Amino acid sequence: MDVELLHFTPLSVADMAIGKCHNKGRYEGEKMRNRLKRVAVKQKHGSVIEHLVYSFDIVGISRGCLQELARHRIASMSVKSTRYTLKELKDASDWELPFYIVQMDDPELHSKAILQLKIVREMLNRGYPNDKAKYLLPESYKTELIWTINARSLRNFLKLRADKSAWLEIRRLAMRVYEKLPDGHKFLFKDCIDDDRETDNQAE
Amino acid sequence: MDVELLHFTPLSVADMAIGKCHNKGRYEGEKMRNRLKRVAVKQKHGSVIEHLVYSFDIVGISRGCLQELARHRIASMSVKSTRYTLKELKDASDWELPFYIVQMDDPELHSKAILQLKIVREMLNRGYPNDKAKYLLPESYKTELIWTINARSLRNFLKLRADKSAWLEIRRLAMRVYEKLPDGHKFLFKDCIDDDRETDNQAE
Amino acid sequence: MDVELLHFTPLSVADMAIGKCHNKGRYEGEKMRNRLKRVAVKQKHGSVIEHLVYSFDIVGISRGCLQELARHRIASMSVKSTRYTLKELKDASDWELPFYIVQMDDPELHSKAILQLKIVREMLNRGYPNDKAKYLLPESYKTELIWTINARSLRNFLKLRADKSAWLEIRRLAMRVYEKLPDGHKFLFKDCIDDDRETDNQAE
Amino acid sequence: MDVELLHFTPLSVADMAIGKCHNKGRYEGEKMRNRLKRVAVKQKHGSVIEHLVYSFDIVGISRGCLQELARHRIASMSVKSTRYTLKELKDASDWELPFYIVQMDDPELHSKAILQLKIVREMLNRGYPNDKAKYLLPESYKTELIWTINARSLRNFLKLRADKSAWLEIRRLAMRVYEKLPDGHKFLFKDCIDDDRETDNQAE
Repeated sequence: MDVELLHFTPLSVADMAIGKCHNKGRYEGEKMRNRLKRVAVKQKHGSVIEHLVYSFDIVGISRGCLQELARHRIASMSVKSTRYTLKELKDASDWELPFYIVQMDDPELHSKAILQLKIVREMLNRGYPNDKAKYLLPESYKTELIWTINARSLRNFLKLRADKSAWLEIRRLAMRVYEKLPDGHKFLFKDCIDDDRETDNQAE
Repeated sequence: MDVELLHFTPLSVADMAIGKCHNKGRYEGEKMRNRLKRVAVKQKHGSVIEHLVYSFDIVGISRGCLQELARHRIASMSVKSTRYTLKELKDASDWELPFYIVQMDDPELHSKAILQLKIVREMLNRGYPNDKAKYLLPESYKTELIWTINARSLRNFLKLRADKSAWLEIRRLAMRVYEKLPDGHKFLFKDCIDDDRETDNQAE
Repeated sequence: MDVELLHFTPLSVADMAIGKCHNKGRYEGEKMRNRLKRVAVKQKHGSVIEHLVYSFDIVGISRGCLQELARHRIASMSVKSTRYTLKELKDASDWELPFYIVQMDDPELHSKAILQLKIVREMLNRGYPNDKAKYLLPESYKTELIWTINARSLRNFLKLRADKSAWLEIRRLAMRVYEKLPDGHKFLFKDCIDDDRETDNQAE
Repeated sequence: MDVELLHFTPLSVADMAIGKCHNKGRYEGEKMRNRLKRVAVKQKHGSVIEHLVYSFDIVGISRGCLQELARHRIASMSVKSTRYTLKELKDASDWELPFYIVQMDDPELHSKAILQLKIVREMLNRGYPNDKAKYLLPESYKTELIWTINARSLRNFLKLRADKSAWLEIRRLAMRVYEKLPDGHKFLFKDCIDDDRETDNQAE
C-alpha cells in the first residue's frame, strides 16, 4: 500500500473562514492553530474545515478495502477500472502475479489468492472478456485511486477507520493517510486516531 | 437477482413542491403528471423530485455489482457485511454453494467461481477468521442490501446504468429497479431507460 | 408558523436495514424499537436511519429563518420564490400586511416591519419588478416550503437547532418539527431535543 | 461585489484521476487539457474534475443573493453571521450606511434601502438585540463568505446562474467567479457561460 499526498489547501483558508463568521479577521502561527482547534475540534463547528481539501494518490489497496472506502460518500474518487484494465493480467508471468494482490502475512492465504488469480488469468487467455472474467477476481486484487476529501469528512473517516474495531487493511490505510498529512495539519486530526477516543460508527 | 420496492413517497408530495415554488397550488391526475414531467424532466428542474424517495430490498447482486452501485453517493445503503456473515459459508454443502454466487450463463465461468468458493470454505474450516478469508472471495459472491434513493438521483442512476455501455449485471439491476417502480411513477423515468437517449457518464 | 408532516417512511424499513447488515432478520414492536435505538442512537450507526425519510410542509417561517434552514445541505427543499410571487404584495390592503410577516412579540418591532413592507408595496405599485423590489424585503417576510430530510440528518438538525444557543425562530421550528413527527418515531430523536445533551455545532 | 480566488488545485490532479481510471498515465500541456475537456466536458464524466477545488473570498453580495447561493449544496460556505455582527450598524454614520448595502443602479431603490437600514440602526440603538433587530434587515444588506466548491459543482452553478434567466445579482456573481478562475482552468467552464448553451434548471 502506497499513499502519496498530491495537494492540500493551506490552513489559512480555514482560518479566514473562521474569521469571516464573527468578523474577527485572520490569525497566524500558534494563535491560528489554537483557534482552529478550538472551533473545529472542541466546539465541533466542522463546516469551517470543509475548506481544507486533501488529494491523495492511493496505490495498492485491495478491492475489498475499496468496498469500505467507497462508502465514505463525502469524498471524490477516481478508481482504476477492472472493466478496462483487467487484461493486464493476461500476460503476467507466475512471478509477477504476487504484485497484483495485496500482501498478506499468512503464506497459506497468499498462495490461495495466487491460485485464484491464476484462474482469472487462464480465463482471460481462453478469450473471456474482462466483463466476465472479473467475476472471478478475489477481493485481495489490488486497485488504485485518486481520492479527494475535505478535513471534516476526513475526521469522520479517521475516527471510524483508525479504530481498533475497523478491518485491518482499512485501519492501515487510515494510519497511512494520517501520516501523509502535512505535519502542520496533524493537530486537526490527532484526536481521531488516538485509541482512547470516543467512536462514531458511521461512514458519511 | 431479486428487487422489491419496500416503500415510496406518493407523487402528491412532489406536486406540492412544484406548486409551492410559484404559489400555484396542487394539481391532480393527468394534469399533475403533465406538470411533473414538464418541470422535472423537460425543464430539468430536478430538485422538485428529490422529495420522491424509494426504498428497495435488493437481494442477490454480486460484490462486483456492489462496487459500482456504491459509487452513486446520493443514496443510502445498508449492506450485508462479509466481516460479520462470511462464516455462513463454512457449513455450506457442495450443492448449496451455487446459491452463494450470482448466476452466470457460462458453465465454465460458473464452475471456476464454485472452485474459488470452495477455497474460501476450506480456509474458514481451517479456522481462518472472516476478516482474512474474505480476501479470497470472488466478486461473483452474492450480497444484499436495503437501498434508498430519491427520484432525481435515481434518474441519474438509470441513465448511466441502463445504458448499453454499462456492465451487464448493473444494467440488469437498473432495468429491474425500473420495473419495480410504481406504475404511476414510471413516466418520470421512462426517458432514462430508452436506448436512444443522450447519456451522461457520471455516477453522482 | 405551521408545520405539517406530509409523508414518512415506516420504521420497518430501517429495521430491515439493520437486520440486513448482520443477517439478523426483522424484529417487531418493542424489540424493533430497542434495536433501532441501540444501533442508531447509542452506537451512532447513523446510516441505518437514513432510510427513514420525512416530508414536511412548512408555512410561515421568515426569510431569515430560511437562511439558516438552507444551510442544512443533506435535505431537499422547494421554496416559494420571491422572484415569481412578490407581486402578491402589490394589492395587499393595510390590514392584510401583517399576514406577510412572521409574528413578533414586540409591537415596536412589528410596526417597523410593517413600515418596511409598505415601502416594498409602494415600489411594486410604482412599477418596480419583483427582481428589484425584493432587495427591500425585510427578513421577517414570510416564506413557505416543502422540506424532505432523512432521520440521520434530522437528528443533526434537531441537535443544533433545538439547542438553547439557537436563534429563537429556528428553535421554535425545530420543536414544531419534532412535535409533528409520528409518535412512534419520536424515541429516535428525543435525546436531540433534551436540554442537557451534548451539542454539535455544525449544519450538515 | 468583490471576489478573490484564495486557492485552487492544479489541473494535474484531475489529469492523474483520468489516467488512473484506464491506467493511461499522465499527460501534460495541450494534450492534458484536451483530454480533460474531452472526458469531463464532452463525455460528461464529471467525477474526474471533482478533484479540482476552488476557494473564494466573496465580499459584498446581498443577503438576497446569499439565499440563492446557499441552495448549491455541493459546496462549503462560512458566512458572516448577522446574529454576531449586526451591532456594527449601531454606530454607523449616515454617510457610512451605503457601504452596508449592495449598490443598486436605481437611486430611488437605493434611498429606500437606506431608509430601511436607518430603521434597523434605530432599533439597535434603542437596545434591541441583534437576534430581534435582524428581522428588519432588508435583503440588500451586504454579507461576505468563504466559498469552496469543486469543478463539477461549479460547472452546474455557472450553467444555472450565468444564464440570462438568472437573477441579475447572482448572474453578476457567476461571471465574476468565472473571471477569477485561473486562466489555465477556464477552458473547463467556458461552455457554461456561453449564452447559447443548453440550460439545466437545478441547484445541486
